[in-house]
Amino acid sequence: MSAQWNRFLELMGEMVDLAHMTALAGWDQQVMMPSRGAEERGRQIATLERYIHKLLTGREFGDLLSALEEEVEAKGTPYESREASLIRKARREFDKAVRLPEQLVSEMAQAESLAFNAWVEAKSKADFRLFEPHLSRLVELQKAKAEALGYKDTPYDALLDNYEPGMTSKDLEELFSELRAELTPLVAQIARSRSTKEHLADNPLRQYYAEKGQMDLCRKILDILGFDGNKGRMDKSAHPFTTQIGRHDIRLTIRTRTNDLASAVFCTLHEGGHALYEQGLPDTFKRTFLGQGASLGVHESQSRLWENVIGRSRLFWQHFLPVAREIFPSQLAGVGIDRIYKAVNLVEPSLVRVDADEVTYNLHIIMRYEIERALLEGELAVADLPAVWWEKMEKYLGIKPANDAEGVLQDVHWAQGYFGYFPTYTLGSVFSVQLWQAACRKEADLAVRLEKGDFSVVREWLNKEVHAWGASLTMQELALKVTGKKLTIKPYIKYLKNKYSKLYDLAL
Amino acid sequence: MSAQWNRFLELMGEMVDLAHMTALAGWDQQVMMPSRGAEERGRQIATLERYIHKLLTGREFGDLLSALEEEVEAKGTPYESREASLIRKARREFDKAVRLPEQLVSEMAQAESLAFNAWVEAKSKADFRLFEPHLSRLVELQKAKAEALGYKDTPYDALLDNYEPGMTSKDLEELFSELRAELTPLVAQIARSRSTKEHLADNPLRQYYAEKGQMDLCRKILDILGFDGNKGRMDKSAHPFTTQIGRHDIRLTIRTRTNDLASAVFCTLHEGGHALYEQGLPDTFKRTFLGQGASLGVHESQSRLWENVIGRSRLFWQHFLPVAREIFPSQLAGVGIDRIYKAVNLVEPSLVRVDADEVTYNLHIIMRYEIERALLEGELAVADLPAVWWEKMEKYLGIKPANDAEGVLQDVHWAQGYFGYFPTYTLGSVFSVQLWQAACRKEADLAVRLEKGDFSVVREWLNKEVHAWGASLTMQELALKVTGKKLTIKPYIKYLKNKYSKLYDLAL
Repeated sequence: MSAQWNRFLELMGEMVDLAHMTALAGWDQQVMMPSRGAEERGRQIATLERYIHKLLTGREFGDLLSALEEEVEAKGTPYESREASLIRKARREFDKAVRLPEQLVSEMAQAESLAFNAWVEAKSKADFRLFEPHLSRLVELQKAKAEALGYKDTPYDALLDNYEPGMTSKDLEELFSELRAELTPLVAQIARSRSTKEHLADNPLRQYYAEKGQMDLCRKILDILGFDGNKGRMDKSAHPFTTQIGRHDIRLTIRTRTNDLASAVFCTLHEGGHALYEQGLPDTFKRTFLGQGASLGVHESQSRLWENVIGRSRLFWQHFLPVAREIFPSQLAGVGIDRIYKAVNLVEPSLVRVDADEVTYNLHIIMRYEIERALLEGELAVADLPAVWWEKMEKYLGIKPANDAEGVLQDVHWAQGYFGYFPTYTLGSVFSVQLWQAACRKEADLAVRLEKGDFSVVREWLNKEVHAWGASLTMQELALKVTGKKLTIKPYIKYLKNKYSKLYDLAL
Repeated sequence: MSAQWNRFLELMGEMVDLAHMTALAGWDQQVMMPSRGAEERGRQIATLERYIHKLLTGREFGDLLSALEEEVEAKGTPYESREASLIRKARREFDKAVRLPEQLVSEMAQAESLAFNAWVEAKSKADFRLFEPHLSRLVELQKAKAEALGYKDTPYDALLDNYEPGMTSKDLEELFSELRAELTPLVAQIARSRSTKEHLADNPLRQYYAEKGQMDLCRKILDILGFDGNKGRMDKSAHPFTTQIGRHDIRLTIRTRTNDLASAVFCTLHEGGHALYEQGLPDTFKRTFLGQGASLGVHESQSRLWENVIGRSRLFWQHFLPVAREIFPSQLAGVGIDRIYKAVNLVEPSLVRVDADEVTYNLHIIMRYEIERALLEGELAVADLPAVWWEKMEKYLGIKPANDAEGVLQDVHWAQGYFGYFPTYTLGSVFSVQLWQAACRKEADLAVRLEKGDFSVVREWLNKEVHAWGASLTMQELALKVTGKKLTIKPYIKYLKNKYSKLYDLAL
């Protein structure tokens, strides 16, 4: 490698080191930090981010990038090679960073800090009016951000691209229109079904489960998944998350609820899926921008695959129920596979997204997407949000929030400046089923090994087909490569209809 | 404040932010990090340190420093003011940083990394020859470091000054010669005393104490000391330490031994003393170089005061024994204050420094000081170290190690490049007694409040007299200000002789 390449990699390595320390500071803040450390931690993280930004937008890195870009092009280095992918990814990060004026970035940080505090108060008082002026300001700033980043059709695309590279609202519309059309009646049918009430009344997971046993059980789940405890750890936090602190240091957090075993179990499967992705990234991508997930949507495909496709399957619980019964013999004695399978697949329209089931979840996302886009395009005034929220809730889910706290104020995302982010949750669910069907088609051993309870076959396949690419490819490129098709909604809808029509005795 | 001052403070604040993140990375490494994270963590810390070094030695900071130095001088800003102290401290850090050639710093880092691994192997095999070539290299590099930093009398002084600003080996010789002369016969007398054997046979702290109860008890100790749990935390690690991660985030670690309650208790008192110092630093020093302890020796005066002067006093155990008995009723039922007081003040010459008692501890330090200085001055060849070690052990403590592992290889300090560091342990002990006597003299309420078991009076006094100065003053300046005298050995020797002649029925 040339001296230019070495220097380019060294600078990138330093940025990754500092980003990992930022991740550690964030993990620590949510898991370990004493309460009074909060004020200074914000500034510490800001200082780290400022140095990463300086390195990224610095003249030296920019010049090296241009020179190596020419080199890669002149040599005709293949698109999927490490070199070409590195340059492509670095160019993307560089362009985004230099396009955002420092003034705007600092105004946004300040506005978000104020908005977060206002959101906390507004939510606790269930009063949207307290948050409204802050949200208006945030929407204005997000519009300015979209203008600075640039877009073709709608400002929404500029923001979406930060989380899902290459994806546009045109792509989303294609997927969502079909999903909207199919899910709304499905949810209504399930709600009318007699089985729903039976499910609700007969849920063995809603009993008292002691904290300590739940943690032990969740560690067993990580073992089943094949999470490497020498290269990561699991802790508790108020809001579960997964983070990369080093190539061999991947940490997930979960939460437990003593009156509901499902909460911790599915949280562990979900975050475990994220963590396996991070642990599965190739060593050759270490200390580079390729050593991370391809996008939020692809990341979510991994967590949803383990949480839903595997974790809510009858097969999984056939193997897992005896394990859980060993730790909770009194709660689970006499509970058979049928009861459990129904319990973990309970569909029930609910007001709060994070508590939603596999089917209704997507309607929460579609709603937010529609609202966000209308806000950014100036079609919806912030003041009208609560009313629009109620309207959409009733239309899609047939229920209405009693107040703003369980309505428009339920998520923190907007207060933290995450606009264009929600759709990645549904994109991930859609992709998870597409990936799963490819695995069933392509991996000969899959069925046999799963039947034996050897779930590592799934991890191994994902590792080879998805994790190995790191951030080299976009979601669409990955979909094409792994499944032979771009992202498609059909298999996902078919999967949901099949599964839930059987569970709820529906005639579809 | 002028724009220059603001910029100077902002740059210093960023250095402190990055130093705190380095501290977090170090804490996490010893307390939380999964095993495989180690390799990358070293590099992450090195990257953070490189950026701190760049900021410190950068042209901008140097120019601001010179300009403000002139301003402070022209204005005649008082020596003890925040401004003058800040400039003085920054000048000191700046000069040290620019004097060390980058080449030397990187050679040392590399040599220490290799030496550490060699030390681990050599210690496990009890074979000094495996470590010898590495130690020789380290000594050569330390000599070069001393030359680069500059000194008047001996290269040892250049290194000592890094840990104890302003202190020289001439000062040490004055203190140590008297200490050496008084302690060696005292230790021999105690060893011959009949009481020692009685103490050894009758130690209620050497029974089985369950881990969980020990941790609970240690948290009670922190409560007694007045440690603020909203501004810090306590965890376990192999090697106990205390670290500052933010102005309001001070963390200590302890270790427990299930067959010896004393280990965790005195470790908590010791690290607790360090932690109170850090928690007691004034808010006005936040994000500046003054927001830390004055020196390692002053830091150690705080830990030793709590560990020994308070923690090994009869009064402390009168109040603490009932607390301990509540958690460990079966082990401590019927154990009275006399037995406990003797047990926690057992003097017994031992081979390993970290297990040494209050009296013999200093002889371990004096030995290492003599050896280190002889190595740096070329009076002692590395190859002759094991023999010299045995000789000094016999001379000072009357015992001999069976092998190198419990002899010359016992401490990791040299392998990590800490030369000129050990004396700060004894300086701290000496200063702790001098401070204590000043407190008894100056604080009217002290005796009354202590009698009631209100130990926060000690923390409050130290807070006002010592902590409030941060790193503004040196140990000698502090001693003069707080006690009216420079550091003096007499009170310390008198304290040890009084206490231990009573305990061991010695006629001195």
